[in-house]
Amino acid sequence: MRERTRFKVRLLNFSSGRPLVVIDDEAAKRLGVRPHERLVLRWRSREIVAIVNVAWHIPPDTMLVNDEVAEELGVKGGEEVEAEVAPPPRSLRYIRDLLGGARLGYEEIKCIVKDVVEDRLSEVELAALVTAISQRGMGVDEAYYFSRAMVETGETLDLGVKPILDKHSIGGVPGDKTTLVVVPIIASLGYYIPKTSSRAITSPAGTADRAEVLMPVELSPEEVREVVLKVHGCIAWGGALRMAPADDKIIRVEYPLAIDPFLVPSIMAKKRAVGATHVVIDIPVGRGAKVKTIGEAHYLAREIMEVGRRLGMEVACALTVGEQPIGYAAGPALEAREALYTLMGRGPPDLLDKATSIAGILLEMVGVEGGRQVALESLRRGKALEKMREIIAAQGGDPSVKPEDIPVGDKRLTIRAEKSGMVTWINNAIIATIARLAGAPKDKGAGIELHVKIGDKVGRGTPLMTVYSEHSVKLQAVEEYLSEVTPIGVGKPGTEMLIRSLLAPAPHERPTVLER
Amino acid sequence: MRERTRFKVRLLNFSSGRPLVVIDDEAAKRLGVRPHERLVLRWRSREIVAIVNVAWHIPPDTMLVNDEVAEELGVKGGEEVEAEVAPPPRSLRYIRDLLGGARLGYEEIKCIVKDVVEDRLSEVELAALVTAISQRGMGVDEAYYFSRAMVETGETLDLGVKPILDKHSIGGVPGDKTTLVVVPIIASLGYYIPKTSSRAITSPAGTADRAEVLMPVELSPEEVREVVLKVHGCIAWGGALRMAPADDKIIRVEYPLAIDPFLVPSIMAKKRAVGATHVVIDIPVGRGAKVKTIGEAHYLAREIMEVGRRLGMEVACALTVGEQPIGYAAGPALEAREALYTLMGRGPPDLLDKATSIAGILLEMVGVEGGRQVALESLRRGKALEKMREIIAAQGGDPSVKPEDIPVGDKRLTIRAEKSGMVTWINNAIIATIARLAGAPKDKGAGIELHVKIGDKVGRGTPLMTVYSEHSVKLQAVEEYLSEVTPIGVGKPGTEMLIRSLLAPAPHERPTVLER
Repeated sequence: MRERTRFKVRLLNFSSGRPLVVIDDEAAKRLGVRPHERLVLRWRSREIVAIVNVAWHIPPDTMLVNDEVAEELGVKGGEEVEAEVAPPPRSLRYIRDLLGGARLGYEEIKCIVKDVVEDRLSEVELAALVTAISQRGMGVDEAYYFSRAMVETGETLDLGVKPILDKHSIGGVPGDKTTLVVVPIIASLGYYIPKTSSRAITSPAGTADRAEVLMPVELSPEEVREVVLKVHGCIAWGGALRMAPADDKIIRVEYPLAIDPFLVPSIMAKKRAVGATHVVIDIPVGRGAKVKTIGEAHYLAREIMEVGRRLGMEVACALTVGEQPIGYAAGPALEAREALYTLMGRGPPDLLDKATSIAGILLEMVGVEGGRQVALESLRRGKALEKMREIIAAQGGDPSVKPEDIPVGDKRLTIRAEKSGMVTWINNAIIATIARLAGAPKDKGAGIELHVKIGDKVGRGTPLMTVYSEHSVKLQAVEEYLSEVTPIGVGKPGTEMLIRSLLAPAPHERPTVLER
Repeated sequence: MRERTRFKVRLLNFSSGRPLVVIDDEAAKRLGVRPHERLVLRWRSREIVAIVNVAWHIPPDTMLVNDEVAEELGVKGGEEVEAEVAPPPRSLRYIRDLLGGARLGYEEIKCIVKDVVEDRLSEVELAALVTAISQRGMGVDEAYYFSRAMVETGETLDLGVKPILDKHSIGGVPGDKTTLVVVPIIASLGYYIPKTSSRAITSPAGTADRAEVLMPVELSPEEVREVVLKVHGCIAWGGALRMAPADDKIIRVEYPLAIDPFLVPSIMAKKRAVGATHVVIDIPVGRGAKVKTIGEAHYLAREIMEVGRRLGMEVACALTVGEQPIGYAAGPALEAREALYTLMGRGPPDLLDKATSIAGILLEMVGVEGGRQVALESLRRGKALEKMREIIAAQGGDPSVKPEDIPVGDKRLTIRAEKSGMVTWINNAIIATIARLAGAPKDKGAGIELHVKIGDKVGRGTPLMTVYSEHSVKLQAVEEYLSEVTPIGVGKPGTEMLIRSLLAPAPHERPTVLER
């Protein structure tokens, strides 16, 4: 028998993704409820559990409610609603166990994931979950449990056919439009590949952003099914499909913290949800990539393959070169253009190599001999290009699109070598920041075009890269940023300055200069 | 040069502790800002940085702002305010470093603590900080840096006298009214002891709640100074003093997670802020206490002493018996009453022992020989009682208060032994829950009175404890709870059931019974 109190309802008139009430600090004390705890609200025969935000300057008998609460209770403002402290959800107990050092079992993890999907956990609780796992690591068991629970709490695609092929990159390398080449190759050979992709979070473009330049990507689950059964492949945005929806909620708190502890379940759940039977996971390795060393990549690959096996999929991992962008373009339109050129036989060698290698591995997994050669043939004979046009048409795009018709930003800035030598490094993070400052991924035509790659010889004044933007103010921001950083390193191999950067104690970082 | 957009302001009409705006998901995408990021808002010549909450169903050109934003910008609703994505605060970079495994230095920790105090971090970021530290532990260096930074970002008390004595318990044991006895003993001997205390978070009563039964405890810093300089001691609520205010913000996110990684800086900063020179920290040890083993207590004590040394204080730690409540009472009024009886020479032996031991250690730290004996003398001669009455008067209470005049709940429930034997254990957590269900600490007269302690012999039907409440519905809740738990264990020593509790796999926890 806990304290019950009546509150007059006032509407916030917005929806915040989960039921939420705001009450005054005094009222909260009276009820014995603290911020992030929950209240059961009752109005007539309806009730809902909402997370409490505590504020000040609200009349103590008034409760502000968001749309989720108003709709569930059927209140319009002015009603007297009964409030009572609600017990915490069971998943919070498991999160606390996890904070205390416990390894969780499947039932417990399922309960957590379910409550994440149903928005029963506060953001503080979700942040604690994500942080705790980033600190102590996620074992293979937990990665499998989270993957399975994420699949089970979302939609799944059942094409009713087998095998179903798929690929995914763990990400982190700008300009990686491999998927736009692999999907049509695989589909052109008669295999099913229902590819779902994300939009960019910190990169210049996600696969969904690139593909959207060529065709609509926001398909419904039913549309994905239709497209794939018709043309064998699709490139859809995963966000609208409600497959493994827990992941989207988790990303919301991972992002501001710049941590990614749910990498493996996030990817594997999405592959399982589309019914994939054979999967290649691309792990870019190298400085500037998410995984820095081959040793680290091996550990990750072993974990991914084991989780895949337990989920009933055959999974291979490709460790790829990740220390510079793939191809020459970064940014949605520039990348879509480069992918089309590649399908037309005029692509950059590294992209061609990566796409046909990954397609080849997939093909060999389903018994095709000489997979890479078969993939190359599909490209050479124009089969993959033709298939891409079918996919574009099936998703509602213009199948006759030509690369040179794709509009790119008309505000441009070219960066040139300040001295002659060889390109010794390209900084992925700086390239990504430049493309984003230029407007990518929101401005589809924004991005960068590299004119050189690592190992190329340049003279003084040779163009290194061109930045594309749709707005000159954004190009100005790029210019300001470029005065502080070096995106591309030029030198004589072996003669790089040995001190890469200087970290000095804070007081010396910015010496104070007194003008006398 | 980031995206700038104008928004029409609508007021939320509440204050939430930090500047906050709510904008529509569409508007957020247009601006390129994500939840928990920040916007700089500008109106005429004023600007403020606010944390972004993303919602749905808000007109895309409208921005809801809380009182903090409205007051700083001077807007009343309807104005067009310019918004631009703000860079994250520098402290967020350090928190990300910490998540990445870095050990932080003083400047970095100071920056984090400053931003905590100034509400520049979102709750997700704060939760990540607290969780990461709970997962990897806080070393002595970091504990010292946090303590120092917490002191430096808050108010401090300068009495202008020396030595200044103080004590603190790390908490966790119900009924621990030791402070209410130690403070008057120390002050009665002419030493200064400006004691600040907290209110209960999860216990039946905090020292501030207990003391408030006898006198006002919400003193201003100036009042603390006056009271202490006049009568040598005080018992004030720390919450209003703005000493180490970072701690209050940290507790807000620690609480729902049931973790306490800032224990050491939180306590040590508060001792340093009142200018303490000699401090005893009480570490209750035992099952049901925060610290379970003597070994663990030794590690904690070493850390506390070293942090104290670096802060310029002489600190001793007392490892005390924590496996059952101190004295017989738990709950604000019942405890205040028991403390007064103790000052009158009629207290329970364990409380008397603990209070005079801690007072004795403090006295010996400042050179008094036979400290405990001196403390006992102060009690026996009525000096401590007299001093307590002076403190009560100085803080604005009634100095003539008698223990039997203190009102306690008139709804009562007595729990009796179901069999004869010896009291072998008392469960602190269950005792605390009973007292809280009965209404403590909000209802001052609610709580429990034990009739037995561990080792006492009881017959069948002997009263074990009485629950006091001000409301019969709350007593009903206690009764329901008591049908599920056993607060006090009675048995023959050595004949306890060897299985303490049974944890079975989830499906078996609640067998499904099909009625046929």
